[in-house]
Amino acid sequence: MFWWNGVLAPTAAAAMNTPDPLAHVTPEVRQRPAPQALLDALAGRFEARFSTARAVREQHGRDESAFTTVPPPAAVVFAESVADVQDTVRLCARYKTPVIAYGAGSSLEGHLLAVQGGISLDVSRMNRILRVQPEDLTATVQPGVTRKTLNEAIKSAGLFFPIDPGADASLGGMAATRASGTNAVRYGTMRENVLALQVVTPQGEAIRTGTRARKSSAGYDLTRLFVGSEGTLGVITEVTLRLYPLPEAVSAAICNFPTIADAVDTVIRIIQLGVPIARVELIDAHTVALVNRHARLQLREQHMLLMEFHGSPAGVKEQAEAVQNIAGEHHGADFDWADTPEERTRLWAARHNAFFAAVQSRPGCRAISTDTCVPISRLADCLLASVAEADASGLPYFLVGHVGDGNFHFGYLIDPGNHDERARAETLNRQLVARAIAMEGTCSGEHGVGLHKIGFLRDEADAGALAVMRAIKRALDPHDIMNPGKILG
Amino acid sequence: MFWWNGVLAPTAAAAMNTPDPLAHVTPEVRQRPAPQALLDALAGRFEARFSTARAVREQHGRDESAFTTVPPPAAVVFAESVADVQDTVRLCARYKTPVIAYGAGSSLEGHLLAVQGGISLDVSRMNRILRVQPEDLTATVQPGVTRKTLNEAIKSAGLFFPIDPGADASLGGMAATRASGTNAVRYGTMRENVLALQVVTPQGEAIRTGTRARKSSAGYDLTRLFVGSEGTLGVITEVTLRLYPLPEAVSAAICNFPTIADAVDTVIRIIQLGVPIARVELIDAHTVALVNRHARLQLREQHMLLMEFHGSPAGVKEQAEAVQNIAGEHHGADFDWADTPEERTRLWAARHNAFFAAVQSRPGCRAISTDTCVPISRLADCLLASVAEADASGLPYFLVGHVGDGNFHFGYLIDPGNHDERARAETLNRQLVARAIAMEGTCSGEHGVGLHKIGFLRDEADAGALAVMRAIKRALDPHDIMNPGKILG
Repeated sequence: MFWWNGVLAPTAAAAMNTPDPLAHVTPEVRQRPAPQALLDALAGRFEARFSTARAVREQHGRDESAFTTVPPPAAVVFAESVADVQDTVRLCARYKTPVIAYGAGSSLEGHLLAVQGGISLDVSRMNRILRVQPEDLTATVQPGVTRKTLNEAIKSAGLFFPIDPGADASLGGMAATRASGTNAVRYGTMRENVLALQVVTPQGEAIRTGTRARKSSAGYDLTRLFVGSEGTLGVITEVTLRLYPLPEAVSAAICNFPTIADAVDTVIRIIQLGVPIARVELIDAHTVALVNRHARLQLREQHMLLMEFHGSPAGVKEQAEAVQNIAGEHHGADFDWADTPEERTRLWAARHNAFFAAVQSRPGCRAISTDTCVPISRLADCLLASVAEADASGLPYFLVGHVGDGNFHFGYLIDPGNHDERARAETLNRQLVARAIAMEGTCSGEHGVGLHKIGFLRDEADAGALAVMRAIKRALDPHDIMNPGKILG
Repeated sequence: MFWWNGVLAPTAAAAMNTPDPLAHVTPEVRQRPAPQALLDALAGRFEARFSTARAVREQHGRDESAFTTVPPPAAVVFAESVADVQDTVRLCARYKTPVIAYGAGSSLEGHLLAVQGGISLDVSRMNRILRVQPEDLTATVQPGVTRKTLNEAIKSAGLFFPIDPGADASLGGMAATRASGTNAVRYGTMRENVLALQVVTPQGEAIRTGTRARKSSAGYDLTRLFVGSEGTLGVITEVTLRLYPLPEAVSAAICNFPTIADAVDTVIRIIQLGVPIARVELIDAHTVALVNRHARLQLREQHMLLMEFHGSPAGVKEQAEAVQNIAGEHHGADFDWADTPEERTRLWAARHNAFFAAVQSRPGCRAISTDTCVPISRLADCLLASVAEADASGLPYFLVGHVGDGNFHFGYLIDPGNHDERARAETLNRQLVARAIAMEGTCSGEHGVGLHKIGFLRDEADAGALAVMRAIKRALDPHDIMNPGKILG
């Protein structure tokens, strides 16, 4: 077996006998060869839907993470059906070759990188909405359907699917990473909103993990096991989702605060009082400035909460009044309301584009994203200590947060070729994760583990829990062909 | 190995070459001996907290199911700490002897029966509330704490834990069976409300499955894997739960309907319109009569919805008005309101006692409970067809339902010694389950599989999904010591 080690240059730090801040996040690259016989068999089976073209492979060998230099997969298969997925997996199983499912390519933690070589299985053409059952508030979709496509399709039935990670991600990928986003404070995450899956196992069998019943106690919760398993236990080929009636009234507001602490304390109080706010996002003053430039907005460049209320007209009014009172107690300035759908869309687009606004503010940079999530009472402490560290580092960064869940993201903007910047960013990340874990939080609220957080997961989970995860992986995928090298390393 | 087969008498049906309606629900009893050396070691370790007294063993060898004649466990250990659980599991593992965790004894599907012999591990004395963190809306409890005890303890902090299966079940048991109950339509089930667990594995190691963060994407969802695993993968020794602020206003109402179809159609519409009703329970006319007699109430003996609304005073009023309008469109009679806590408590106690009211209506009987859950649009069809079958059978029964979730329970009241009655009840059950599965529903909404639904789970889950469950069980518990013979048979 050929080993290709050291994607990132070894550092002088190790030689100096101090901990290498990159050791924790340097992926192990171990190229398992894809036998020619496998490539021939896939080419024969898929013809024009099989590609070994360099550009296609390179496009499929990366994601939105700051990992850029892992060799691409050996080939790409474009699946259009469950049978395509099964045949690809069976062929790969025969040759013990890795399979990496690929949806929209919007993951953030190196999930898609072929660290052990193998075949990228692109399911983006499996993009049919198979069934919408408005009377049951459910939909079943193929994994390549994106969340925006689904929402467009169900709008006329008065329904929506709330999980909104920002990117127009594929619903298969969102299930695979247990995604959430801005609406999670009210509607939950993919954990709560996937009713059932069809999954192709590492043996190539298509199984169903549940039914369309809203709840079930019938056996082990395979749905929740595959949600968040990042393609390491099987390939998701159908997703059955919970839908929600479009709220009768929606209102969005922004409110500025003199300090981040004031904004965060406002959110903590909103949650503790049980106000059913649908979205409550923090954007720090510096990031508001980036967003203004990128989206040509004139938002006041102060720390800001961006909020949305869903309900009946009276209910929305009541929620908004309660929140205004709370914000007033924490030095919140007057609310600016966005009541028309157009205004709201513009505001949320700006929020969602914060990542790109930040990345474009420094040409050629990549963002190293943090994703910690802590109990709400520790949010201010955790966030403010990390802001101080980031400010002291001198690295440019952005800061946004789904603060209603205790989840926030720093994005450290680094020159990917600059070892020192990368090391400084990862030191900040590591300090933040250590702090979050000490506060009974998690290293990943919604992005998943991928490559980037393998070391952090080992810090967070106890050895026994990791052993259980490994036992499950070994039992279901004994030849380690499903997205190997991710989550558990 | 000694095999003790045939708890229930074999039937003539098999000889007549027609399917035996009990074959599906007859547990396999296979007594694995508990070696004297193990009993001696446990006696030495636990002294007075170890018992082989017949009465103690018999009390621990049954639950509220209609299975009554399986031999009791060989001994009972009363654990008071995680170390007690670990030592018991390690000793049992050394002798490859089954361990059956026991909480409040209120399960309904034969979960606690020692079908393969072994040791009952009673955790009811692990009844300390370890931490309540009102500022985070979380609590961590030992597994023997019951839901009522928890609610009593957190009331003064303005908090409550909504999951309410009726019985004052232990929170460890509720997690193990993925319980839900009357509040699930608004607040979810144990699936949504357990944040993290401490579990003792079949090797005797205590692991933590999560953190106190509200959401996480950090690795496989072990919490959700152990929730609903019915003691077959490990013993739950701590449960971290989500709490909720006590609603500012609560209002309960009953509404009568001329037909079950009218009541169910009302519920379907409430759900489809997204009214955030907290509870909506169906009680059929006959069961109302049983409840009246048992609880000395004067409820109108018609089909009834029993509802509860939570929110702000204005919000509750608005919800109630919406529901009144919907009920009016479906021939609902005037609402009777129960606004005082005392009236509400009396109503809900009556609802929760429907099971006991029914069982006491026929001295010496046992109830065989059904637990199907279907997509809400199929609820009326599923329910009414099964009502017709039950009426035609001549068996006494009760009918209640968490209809907002599509979940309902028939309880067929049988003389446990009467083979013919048992066979008729199981035929009804089997027809109902087949109907629910055909409607994309599940055989178990909230009671779990235990012994009673092993055959039904095989009908519901595809062979591949069952194979994945078995692979997980084998990987985590290779000697099959954890509550063997349950869920997967």
